[in-house]
Amino acid sequence: MPDFAAIADRLTEQRIELPSWAFGNSGTRFKVFAQPGVPRDPFEKIADAAQVHRYTALSPSVALHIPWDKVASYADLKKHAEDHGVALGTINSNTFQDDIYKLGSLTHSDAKVRQTAIDHHFDCIDIMGETGSRDLKIWLADGTNYPGQDDMRGRQDRLTESLQKIYERIGEDQRLVLEYKIFEPAFYHMDVPDWGTSYAQVAALGDRATVCLDTGHHAPSTNIEFIVMQLLRLGKLGSFDFNSRFYADDDLIVGAADPFQLFRIIVEVIRGGGYGDDGDTAFMLDQCHNIEDKIPGQIRSVLNVQEMTARALLVDRDALSAAQLAGDMLTAHGILMDAFYTDVRPMLAAWREERGLPADPMKAYAESGYAASIVEGRVGGAQAGWGA
Amino acid sequence: MPDFAAIADRLTEQRIELPSWAFGNSGTRFKVFAQPGVPRDPFEKIADAAQVHRYTALSPSVALHIPWDKVASYADLKKHAEDHGVALGTINSNTFQDDIYKLGSLTHSDAKVRQTAIDHHFDCIDIMGETGSRDLKIWLADGTNYPGQDDMRGRQDRLTESLQKIYERIGEDQRLVLEYKIFEPAFYHMDVPDWGTSYAQVAALGDRATVCLDTGHHAPSTNIEFIVMQLLRLGKLGSFDFNSRFYADDDLIVGAADPFQLFRIIVEVIRGGGYGDDGDTAFMLDQCHNIEDKIPGQIRSVLNVQEMTARALLVDRDALSAAQLAGDMLTAHGILMDAFYTDVRPMLAAWREERGLPADPMKAYAESGYAASIVEGRVGGAQAGWGA
Amino acid sequence: MPDFAAIADRLTEQRIELPSWAFGNSGTRFKVFAQPGVPRDPFEKIADAAQVHRYTALSPSVALHIPWDKVASYADLKKHAEDHGVALGTINSNTFQDDIYKLGSLTHSDAKVRQTAIDHHFDCIDIMGETGSRDLKIWLADGTNYPGQDDMRGRQDRLTESLQKIYERIGEDQRLVLEYKIFEPAFYHMDVPDWGTSYAQVAALGDRATVCLDTGHHAPSTNIEFIVMQLLRLGKLGSFDFNSRFYADDDLIVGAADPFQLFRIIVEVIRGGGYGDDGDTAFMLDQCHNIEDKIPGQIRSVLNVQEMTARALLVDRDALSAAQLAGDMLTAHGILMDAFYTDVRPMLAAWREERGLPADPMKAYAESGYAASIVEGRVGGAQAGWGA
Amino acid sequence: MPDFAAIADRLTEQRIELPSWAFGNSGTRFKVFAQPGVPRDPFEKIADAAQVHRYTALSPSVALHIPWDKVASYADLKKHAEDHGVALGTINSNTFQDDIYKLGSLTHSDAKVRQTAIDHHFDCIDIMGETGSRDLKIWLADGTNYPGQDDMRGRQDRLTESLQKIYERIGEDQRLVLEYKIFEPAFYHMDVPDWGTSYAQVAALGDRATVCLDTGHHAPSTNIEFIVMQLLRLGKLGSFDFNSRFYADDDLIVGAADPFQLFRIIVEVIRGGGYGDDGDTAFMLDQCHNIEDKIPGQIRSVLNVQEMTARALLVDRDALSAAQLAGDMLTAHGILMDAFYTDVRPMLAAWREERGLPADPMKAYAESGYAASIVEGRVGGAQAGWGA
Repeated sequence: MPDFAAIADRLTEQRIELPSWAFGNSGTRFKVFAQPGVPRDPFEKIADAAQVHRYTALSPSVALHIPWDKVASYADLKKHAEDHGVALGTINSNTFQDDIYKLGSLTHSDAKVRQTAIDHHFDCIDIMGETGSRDLKIWLADGTNYPGQDDMRGRQDRLTESLQKIYERIGEDQRLVLEYKIFEPAFYHMDVPDWGTSYAQVAALGDRATVCLDTGHHAPSTNIEFIVMQLLRLGKLGSFDFNSRFYADDDLIVGAADPFQLFRIIVEVIRGGGYGDDGDTAFMLDQCHNIEDKIPGQIRSVLNVQEMTARALLVDRDALSAAQLAGDMLTAHGILMDAFYTDVRPMLAAWREERGLPADPMKAYAESGYAASIVEGRVGGAQAGWGA
Repeated sequence: MPDFAAIADRLTEQRIELPSWAFGNSGTRFKVFAQPGVPRDPFEKIADAAQVHRYTALSPSVALHIPWDKVASYADLKKHAEDHGVALGTINSNTFQDDIYKLGSLTHSDAKVRQTAIDHHFDCIDIMGETGSRDLKIWLADGTNYPGQDDMRGRQDRLTESLQKIYERIGEDQRLVLEYKIFEPAFYHMDVPDWGTSYAQVAALGDRATVCLDTGHHAPSTNIEFIVMQLLRLGKLGSFDFNSRFYADDDLIVGAADPFQLFRIIVEVIRGGGYGDDGDTAFMLDQCHNIEDKIPGQIRSVLNVQEMTARALLVDRDALSAAQLAGDMLTAHGILMDAFYTDVRPMLAAWREERGLPADPMKAYAESGYAASIVEGRVGGAQAGWGA
Repeated sequence: MPDFAAIADRLTEQRIELPSWAFGNSGTRFKVFAQPGVPRDPFEKIADAAQVHRYTALSPSVALHIPWDKVASYADLKKHAEDHGVALGTINSNTFQDDIYKLGSLTHSDAKVRQTAIDHHFDCIDIMGETGSRDLKIWLADGTNYPGQDDMRGRQDRLTESLQKIYERIGEDQRLVLEYKIFEPAFYHMDVPDWGTSYAQVAALGDRATVCLDTGHHAPSTNIEFIVMQLLRLGKLGSFDFNSRFYADDDLIVGAADPFQLFRIIVEVIRGGGYGDDGDTAFMLDQCHNIEDKIPGQIRSVLNVQEMTARALLVDRDALSAAQLAGDMLTAHGILMDAFYTDVRPMLAAWREERGLPADPMKAYAESGYAASIVEGRVGGAQAGWGA
Repeated sequence: MPDFAAIADRLTEQRIELPSWAFGNSGTRFKVFAQPGVPRDPFEKIADAAQVHRYTALSPSVALHIPWDKVASYADLKKHAEDHGVALGTINSNTFQDDIYKLGSLTHSDAKVRQTAIDHHFDCIDIMGETGSRDLKIWLADGTNYPGQDDMRGRQDRLTESLQKIYERIGEDQRLVLEYKIFEPAFYHMDVPDWGTSYAQVAALGDRATVCLDTGHHAPSTNIEFIVMQLLRLGKLGSFDFNSRFYADDDLIVGAADPFQLFRIIVEVIRGGGYGDDGDTAFMLDQCHNIEDKIPGQIRSVLNVQEMTARALLVDRDALSAAQLAGDMLTAHGILMDAFYTDVRPMLAAWREERGLPADPMKAYAESGYAASIVEGRVGGAQAGWGA
């Protein structure tokens, strides 16, 4: 097994984007538990996100969600982010919270609704120009609840048309990333339910269109690392939403439900050239913190990804290949497990200290007094987003 | 196969309770689409529910949800219901929308929180006295999101204690009904996740404690009709929440996702003595109508149950038993399918007309003008509930 | 709704290929229950298959499985089939029952094993020349049981190479059809687990390579009709394996587990131009009859497909489109359900009689004496196949 | 966190029974890959099982499966086991491989078949007397494949009667253990599909009847550790079958698919008093080694359980309880994860050496020459069992 020194540099390549919406209130359909001190505007969200980066050096950028993060001046927001040591990242569109999208957006049978949704994406692309964002991420809530409610084929064709129009507007250095999800909020069919559909759609668009894989968006028992392998092989793994689930799209802290699955996924990311400077796959968190504290929840999350990445980098690839070629499956499996069972936490603590970071970011944040300061300082005001 | 005349009387025994909350706005965590004309208070919910009964004669009672349906005078509400031709039914408690229940209610480690939740159930029992309700239905949202978050065993023991206190307050002619659900809103464990837990808990309480089976609350591929059979066999199927799902707790119109499953369930209900005057199992809808119209959604639902009940009653039990005893599985299966594939809709239309009901309740409601009248009449006002 | 007369002609376009292996013994890993009278060789399998066609006129061809159905002279076998009123159909390869395939076949890291598997497919193509078959169907059991056992990416690349070699040998009027399956017999990963993988592989091969969708090969809660829609839209739905499941790849009689799903699937087949003379999708059964009688099991199966096809053809497409465009989802859903709930069995009985077929094929077969004759006549002899 | 020294003694309490059938050939319905050197009779199976214990000191007993392990003299077999340093353990009955059980055994509608199955259990109890076994484990393959095939309620009632007769024959110091399984080999319903059914059945029998939980026998996404907690709380967790699965009853090496789940399960076993000398729950492996080597597969398996047990014993219960009571869920979750992420392998190697065992049992076995000796020595002969 490679020793930790051999992988230390590679760990510096890790960048995990944070979602601005993780810092706002969120919840289930049953209840949104409000937390004191949550941000009242996009500026405060970025300030919170910067805390995560400050203690971990893992999350140098923040994804925005439009219209939740609409501001008067994106130049100001960009400057604000830079002042806090982070950058603005992926722009996420939203076509699921306006009443006109009740029956669909880019797939709607009414051309006017489709155009409204397309225009919203044009707005997002304009914002990308101002923020310097590379990726436009499209997660569509479009779908139906009842068999017969609408014509799935017609919707799929209209999706192609709508995406084509958006794609044409994307700049040369920008990308369109299409996310898939098996169900919710639509309960009979989603218009982009699986990686195959997302792949077929983006392959038809062109090179700057890719797939976004969200770890929580699959049917039970799906082998997600296989899809990672396949999309990297096909050159189409544009981005990656981390989170964790026991049941459906539970959106828990990444690594909390099945750490071994997270390990296997990252092993395939590295294997397929998707990690760090090797590739151009964007990694981000996309989780809710419904009941736990939000900033520590995000710190815990990026640390989980880092710890698993360290383990995955420790896999002895040569020995693994040799055992695989020999058909010695117990040895091959054992080599993988050796890396997984290695406790990398002490090495990572040292790695952080060498880089001027706190050995224990969770503790350092807890002791910083930031949590108390925002509870005190952020009173009143309205919040746009998820649990608004 | 028995002819329809032979089962016509049995169909008159059917009673499907409606949930008051089905008439209010509801939605997913992503968006609640408000509908014009939704009720502004419990009185208007009952008025809407009465429409369903008026055109179908299938839903003579309405379940209330406390505190959503709290009113100054339950005597007035009861009178209002009776004036509209329906009765007040099951009282449903709610321990999932107050901030103090963030980490649990009847299972909470803090005795004060538990007592608050117990007191809420005492309030519900008081209301039952006023409304004349028989059943107190408890669906607990209690659970945890992360392994280690709390001690599952301690919570289970506290659940037993809390239920015991509530059970002691239940009147001689009243029942406690404990519902189970595999997940949501808790995403790691629910304190009452399966029928076995609900059964073990109510068996420890006594004869007046029973299980509520909600068709949407099981793991994928669970054989629900087996559980119906088992609970009836054990004398513990207290009540039944109808709805329909493709994925998780989708809460679609009953019969919309898997009509054959609904048929098999009702076949077992009848087989086990749970149907109509044979037993004391309470049947009710528990669904959302997130995007479809609510009153027609409820009419469609009770009709779906009725149509499947008619098919289930048409099963030729003698021929079925004979084929089963002969080990002739293709014939036995075919006898079941013969009933399922019978188109009972014309007979039911005639059955309705014989009883002074419209042949086509959906059409009769649509033509009644009621929908337009509530859209016009119900302006402003606040609504308590789900999508509030 | 169209009346039955309007669809009668379209029903004559239906062709459902039968699998030769459905007539032999089969079972689970726990036990194969042998049935008296099962065929002792491919000739007897075809004789049995011809019985199904005789009573239904639905199954004019029989798929062969190589090497189970290897014979000295395919010309003789073809002649034998024609004498019995049926044709030879799809050739299915088998790379899962030889010891050398323990760790893979077309994906194996050993070039010699891959070549053996490729050669087997060349043999199959030779046989196709003799039998006049159009389709070579490849279902791969390749995969791994343990994470780390082998390199999924390397296997996928080798799969591409192997398929390329086979594809090059396929004749101008022939097709390569690649089937996918989520799991079993491999329990960690399958090399072709999902439609996306099969699609990406065949798209890379060329126009004569297509996907085979087997209804039992998906993760729980997968929306199969969506995949039907998508593959037809992409021009890649080459063939279709019918069967039915409650849990995994249970291989029950098609329509037995979820008749409404079968209906929805066929609705999309018709919608997408895949039905009958409209398209070139091949439809076949791929089921086991572990405990029920095999010939009646197959008759029941093709009748189930026919009955659902009749219902699907009865969908009032114009009214459906109008309701869909109006956003009237309850009406649209209701129009679909109207067709599903129509009891087409009496019309189909008449349809059969008009065409010189027995009104009740199950009954006609049962009374034919064929079952007794094979039990008596087929004694001894060895059988190649599944449960051999 | 407790240091390793504090838990070293508790690790000596661990006993993991091995299944005799794990050493014979096994496979899927598609293919059984024979392995050279597999045992030809029960004596050789025990010799192989003894190898596992020799290098690990974790598996002092071997479970037998009747009739696979029928011998002329159980006294001889017992003596043979003792000579090899192990004991005979649980007796497993088999009512799924005889033709008469095609439609059921203890649940069959034919009293003669039921009596045959009951008599088989009487034979097993007789053998228990000779072998000194405490537990009779009953896993029933009974169920149906098609809705309507048989009457589920009647079967459940007959199951109760049959179990009653068997239970009456069980000795004062013996136990009846009833295993449940969601599906396979029956594909529509199993007569004992879930823990609730098993619990209700054994609760009706008496104190010496308990439930067997097999980790592979649940619906997808079932929270298994919750069931462990519940059964221990109810005093009914008689025994525990370890294995691992990604999809269905895959029967892989325990800990191979989801090590964190195994950890959580053992945490609940310890929490509930089921571990080691605290309780009387029997732990055993119940896995197949279809493609990997069998003896190393079993060694790997018991080591996996031991490693997870060490981690579970390291959980800082006091700190955990404190964090739980404080409602500090991120800290509580973190305390659990601290134990899980601890690399206990070096400590366990030392622990073994202190006890005269090899530090690396896998390596020690590989170097022992045993594998080569059995390949050479065991030629010919017939094997009863699974893949026979």
